[in-house]
Amino acid sequence: MDTFHSRMKGIHASAFVVQVNSNYLKLKAGYLFPEISRRVQAFSLANPQVDLIRLGIGDVTEPLPLACRDAMKKAIDEMGTDAGFHGYGPEQGYIWLRERIAKFDYKVRGCEIGADEIFVSDGSKCDSSNILDILGEANRIAVTDPVYPVYVDSNVMAGRTGVIEDSGRYEGLVYLPINAANNFQAQIPQHPVDLIYLCFPNNPTGAVATKDQLASWVSYALKNDALILFDAAYEAFIQNEDLPHSIYEIKGARDCAIEFRSFSKNAGFTGTRCAFTVIPKNLKGKTFHDEEVNLWDLWNRRQSTKFNGVSYIVQRGAEAVYSNEGQTQTKSLVNFYMKNAEIIRSSLSAAGFSVYGGEHAPYVWIKSPDQMSSWDFFDLLLEKTNIVGTPGSGFGSSGEGYFRLSAFNSRENVQTAMRRIECL
Amino acid sequence: MDTFHSRMKGIHASAFVVQVNSNYLKLKAGYLFPEISRRVQAFSLANPQVDLIRLGIGDVTEPLPLACRDAMKKAIDEMGTDAGFHGYGPEQGYIWLRERIAKFDYKVRGCEIGADEIFVSDGSKCDSSNILDILGEANRIAVTDPVYPVYVDSNVMAGRTGVIEDSGRYEGLVYLPINAANNFQAQIPQHPVDLIYLCFPNNPTGAVATKDQLASWVSYALKNDALILFDAAYEAFIQNEDLPHSIYEIKGARDCAIEFRSFSKNAGFTGTRCAFTVIPKNLKGKTFHDEEVNLWDLWNRRQSTKFNGVSYIVQRGAEAVYSNEGQTQTKSLVNFYMKNAEIIRSSLSAAGFSVYGGEHAPYVWIKSPDQMSSWDFFDLLLEKTNIVGTPGSGFGSSGEGYFRLSAFNSRENVQTAMRRIECL
Repeated sequence: MDTFHSRMKGIHASAFVVQVNSNYLKLKAGYLFPEISRRVQAFSLANPQVDLIRLGIGDVTEPLPLACRDAMKKAIDEMGTDAGFHGYGPEQGYIWLRERIAKFDYKVRGCEIGADEIFVSDGSKCDSSNILDILGEANRIAVTDPVYPVYVDSNVMAGRTGVIEDSGRYEGLVYLPINAANNFQAQIPQHPVDLIYLCFPNNPTGAVATKDQLASWVSYALKNDALILFDAAYEAFIQNEDLPHSIYEIKGARDCAIEFRSFSKNAGFTGTRCAFTVIPKNLKGKTFHDEEVNLWDLWNRRQSTKFNGVSYIVQRGAEAVYSNEGQTQTKSLVNFYMKNAEIIRSSLSAAGFSVYGGEHAPYVWIKSPDQMSSWDFFDLLLEKTNIVGTPGSGFGSSGEGYFRLSAFNSRENVQTAMRRIECL
Repeated sequence: MDTFHSRMKGIHASAFVVQVNSNYLKLKAGYLFPEISRRVQAFSLANPQVDLIRLGIGDVTEPLPLACRDAMKKAIDEMGTDAGFHGYGPEQGYIWLRERIAKFDYKVRGCEIGADEIFVSDGSKCDSSNILDILGEANRIAVTDPVYPVYVDSNVMAGRTGVIEDSGRYEGLVYLPINAANNFQAQIPQHPVDLIYLCFPNNPTGAVATKDQLASWVSYALKNDALILFDAAYEAFIQNEDLPHSIYEIKGARDCAIEFRSFSKNAGFTGTRCAFTVIPKNLKGKTFHDEEVNLWDLWNRRQSTKFNGVSYIVQRGAEAVYSNEGQTQTKSLVNFYMKNAEIIRSSLSAAGFSVYGGEHAPYVWIKSPDQMSSWDFFDLLLEKTNIVGTPGSGFGSSGEGYFRLSAFNSRENVQTAMRRIECL
């Protein structure tokens, strides 16, 4: 807080032009997906006749569940009447949606999460990057490597890192490698960190964590007063009832974890936009002057000031996910994609690839053949099979030599893609 | 940039707990609208029989235009098919919507704004606070007083101010008073500032700016290398064809201004959520090391990393605003609210109040009678007439002694409210 004066004193005299956030210039020039787009576009231009199959970006492809569509249409009809019109909604989300989430995503799994601890939003990408708004600049931050790039880039943009190093890693971040050797489970850090990003089922490796594995993270966080940022966007793909869907299934997690969830992947909402974040009311942080404050209060203040809530129509669509029809329809969507994942796994294994993930996640993580680099394998698959995947190195330096295929596509496209790879 | 090392060096050793963003603790405890809610709730509990009329928060009340509802239903039907399903959309918004905006909001008014300079978002509240993400910490920032509280609070939260002073103003911000004496037009600052927030038609005063008045701001900004953040959320309410709807109607504005627009007020989208921000490609800023960078590039990077675009369904609804039916229906909505504003203006004038605004804006700005404070007048209106308004002092210390009434309500409620005030 006291840095304001000293900062202004040194700078004001010379600043006769709008200053930008210089941290943005630390970012790697090519964000992963734009670079993929660039290569795919160049290839398509040169080969306009080819039939590309996209198993790259993790975007759903199947139609939106009927229950959600019906609910949204009903909401639109309401919006056409005096009595049913809805203007600004609560920035935190409508209570009827938050109560459904509390009951069906948490209570039934034995987690004590209240409806008022759930903040509805327009996306987990927003939430998992906006969360830095309420956190201080001095936290030591740990991410896995490979990792969902948004965790890293949002920290770079917020000035929480130094510059990029030759390895592609940013100075100041603690990277926890995950690879075949450690079974895609990061080792608990040797030195204390304050913030830990975890994502299970994992994007990009498709790995999943057991209760014991999550419990060791919770225990570490409690011991070190650390905060876990737990991304459970893919929980619906878990096939084994014993595996935890939420970090709050672990005792003590209410005291050390924030959880991000989304309707994008279970209900096909990537283009409809609805998600939520859980901030338990007892979660604490400290100010620069060592005062204790509730993270819930800060996030509530952030959302009230910088956000205006999610569309009423969309929230009614999300609510329908929890109806009987919605549950049946979203389960069937998940099963559809998981059958694709199984086809990808078994075809690639049969073709001699080393294959990971894809059992409790819509992502299959493949070792590039013949020590090829991730981008070389990307180019090979693009040119020889016309399949677009995602180079593992795009998710971090420890992803080098790996490759991600997503199960989000039609059955026919997945089968065609696998036949093409078998003939490679 | 180089501050990262020194910052980490001093702090890491002692930080064995999650640190929060301490700037949040500088915020005034009671944000305006929660405090209004608190008083209204207390009054309603004590007087459960009264029929409150809410002319406080600027939230629309009339049904959503049919053209928008039809377009959204059609989009929902598409989302139910394989061919018409839409997953992740472009983070910048769909090009068909951006092209409509470029043509109907800019080209027809003689503004050179390309579709690719328009970023579709879920709200102007988000955009006008998120814009700070791409700007540096050292900018000198000017706001009017009174002002839309989000401009100030987002700066406080981002650490761009010092602490709050007894006056209710934050150290480090430059406040430009607007009041009856200067006809609600802020004086051009005597000293250079880097960022200027302007809102016309104005929230809360209802004042509007002429082309000459805006031209003097543009000229100031160009001369001082300043950036204008222009909020035109209420442009649809302008009744006189000679008044500018956009800052880009002023020559030179492309070199010094960002504009925020919204579908909230013209098309009743407060609960549906769609807005947009214009960042001309030639707008420049400087890094800490004096390198020149395009603000467009930074905002594009911010949106691509921290945002996932607006719901496809909602964007189709916004697109319908530009259809013939949509134009007719939104004009009729605006006329409806402006007739309310006229009733409020004329009734209050007849009742002896000094009344401002309300001619090109849905807000009427009233001088509290008998030198009453804004909150005293709020309590008086609440208790004696059961009308909820907004105390002018909630928008800044120069708003003290003023009061805002909004024209967003049914005709019947507005007429009843005015009868009650006449009997006061």
